[in-house]
Amino acid sequence: MTAATYTGSQTFSTDESAVEPPQPGQVQIAVAYTGLCGTDLHIFHGDMDARVTLPAVIGHEMSGTIAALGQGVSGWAVGQPVTVMPTLSCGSCSACRRGNSHICHNLDFIGIDSEGSMQNTWNVPAEILIALPEGPALDEAALIEPTAVAVHDVRRSRLGASDFVVVIGGGPVGQLIASVALQQGARVVLVELDAGRRETAQGFGITAIDPREENLVDYVLRETEGAGADVAFEVSGAAAGVNSAVEVLTTRGRLVMVAIHPKPKEIDLHRFFWRELEMFGARLYQREDFEEAVRLVADGAIPARQLISQVVPLGDVEKGFLALESGGVMKVLVDCREVTA
Amino acid sequence: MTAATYTGSQTFSTDESAVEPPQPGQVQIAVAYTGLCGTDLHIFHGDMDARVTLPAVIGHEMSGTIAALGQGVSGWAVGQPVTVMPTLSCGSCSACRRGNSHICHNLDFIGIDSEGSMQNTWNVPAEILIALPEGPALDEAALIEPTAVAVHDVRRSRLGASDFVVVIGGGPVGQLIASVALQQGARVVLVELDAGRRETAQGFGITAIDPREENLVDYVLRETEGAGADVAFEVSGAAAGVNSAVEVLTTRGRLVMVAIHPKPKEIDLHRFFWRELEMFGARLYQREDFEEAVRLVADGAIPARQLISQVVPLGDVEKGFLALESGGVMKVLVDCREVTA
Repeated sequence: MTAATYTGSQTFSTDESAVEPPQPGQVQIAVAYTGLCGTDLHIFHGDMDARVTLPAVIGHEMSGTIAALGQGVSGWAVGQPVTVMPTLSCGSCSACRRGNSHICHNLDFIGIDSEGSMQNTWNVPAEILIALPEGPALDEAALIEPTAVAVHDVRRSRLGASDFVVVIGGGPVGQLIASVALQQGARVVLVELDAGRRETAQGFGITAIDPREENLVDYVLRETEGAGADVAFEVSGAAAGVNSAVEVLTTRGRLVMVAIHPKPKEIDLHRFFWRELEMFGARLYQREDFEEAVRLVADGAIPARQLISQVVPLGDVEKGFLALESGGVMKVLVDCREVTA
Repeated sequence: MTAATYTGSQTFSTDESAVEPPQPGQVQIAVAYTGLCGTDLHIFHGDMDARVTLPAVIGHEMSGTIAALGQGVSGWAVGQPVTVMPTLSCGSCSACRRGNSHICHNLDFIGIDSEGSMQNTWNVPAEILIALPEGPALDEAALIEPTAVAVHDVRRSRLGASDFVVVIGGGPVGQLIASVALQQGARVVLVELDAGRRETAQGFGITAIDPREENLVDYVLRETEGAGADVAFEVSGAAAGVNSAVEVLTTRGRLVMVAIHPKPKEIDLHRFFWRELEMFGARLYQREDFEEAVRLVADGAIPARQLISQVVPLGDVEKGFLALESGGVMKVLVDCREVTA
């Protein structure tokens, strides 16, 4: 078997080793594709070396087929297409005890805290498997995990079908949030500085504006008879994004905090008070979000294929990361079945 | 009739004039008591001269009895004890159209934007009247309005009966929020720097701590088996209060923003994301909050009497404000039936 192993400071090695059989309770997956996400990019840059134990096989957005079943595993068949929900919770922390195991305080995020999917043969606990229906190609199926993030974010917003939604930030997660909200009947505008990303969104039927060319608040007030947006998703990670999200909301509007803001940011608390605004943190997904994401990708209801900008073989993971950070791309996938191009 | 009229820069005059009969649709109230609140104190200091048209009769926390009925008013009787819900909404702005008329964008807040209750005879539209049941004395009834604020704040928190609640700031509204939450079965700790205010709370059976002497987060974690608080009310208006509120919450904990923060403040958005925290702005009250406040005060379920620190006659309003800002007092009432002590 072959694995791409992160060895630190933007370097991966391609390692060959003997295939280990799945342990009892495990399933062996023949991995097809692994998507690269922003967190993986942080790892690539060494920003998460304190959390990731090197050398590490990372990767958590994946698709594949079952290659072998470990002892005691039932309900699954060799050859079946699958993805995984890459989280294992402890079951005993206060978050788990109170029904929030998806953000368990001792979460094992597979592909970060433990071995991930950037390899062609991967043994995982059967409990994290998610069955794929007929329908999506395996490259599209690698987008189920980020789609589950978007489904969760939209669910946290308590979106109503006639709501007006502003998505601030047009990377893959922003595009997926906009797509999921649109699917649910909302009116959506995506705010993005990059022209290419705006074009991508427009290709999906999403209105996208450049806030330097068009005043966002004026635009939204015009579109909502002076009311403002019902929901804003802050996906940019920028201070200006936070300010815009607060400013654009209607009375009792909901702000969903999706982006990672490593440092505290100023926020207009007076407006929260005055207009009774609401803010909801949103992180990862719950099982129902993942299952909804499978349906959306299988039904072609979100533009999974169009979001795939590039596919690199397992031996070229570094090139994939360099493409990701060079801009102009959306999703980069690693084809884990191929070592070289 | 006699009115205390605010004439600017911390000055009130006591004015005599002829009693005007109530207009059609109005009711004339013989005002008994008017409470002084933080907003009134801002007016007293001239901070709201841009909004208040001078000379002004202010005051909006009141009690009294009906003295006369204007033409076309039915369902009310002379002599009946009443208070008022001192807000009139426009009915046509986007907040009103969407069911949030309590924070109407064109709100007439009576006693700020229009004539208030610091007078012994007051004509008001019948629609703002709230009937008082047998039970509370009229001085206690003047605390119904701030109690309605507290009821609304607690309702915004979606409080559960077994929730652990942190109230940051022990002024009258903080004390009332703590009392209402306690009434609803929650466990409550009030955080307050002032020893006198902590003693007041302790007198109501509320645990009160000094965050300089006891680490709030450690305290709450001990009390909640390591989970953290379900709800935090930020009533202090201080940056440290905001930080404590965010820090002390459990996963998916709710922060209710009650205090006025005139300038944007830094807030730990990463923790909102990581722990899926929620924040809710809360302002004023809805009719159901007011009616619940009437019940709570009538039943003696909240410590209205104990919160009354001082009563001044109508001619001594300035003294009332000076007492309010000198510290060491909770609620100061104006006895509108007496001109001099």
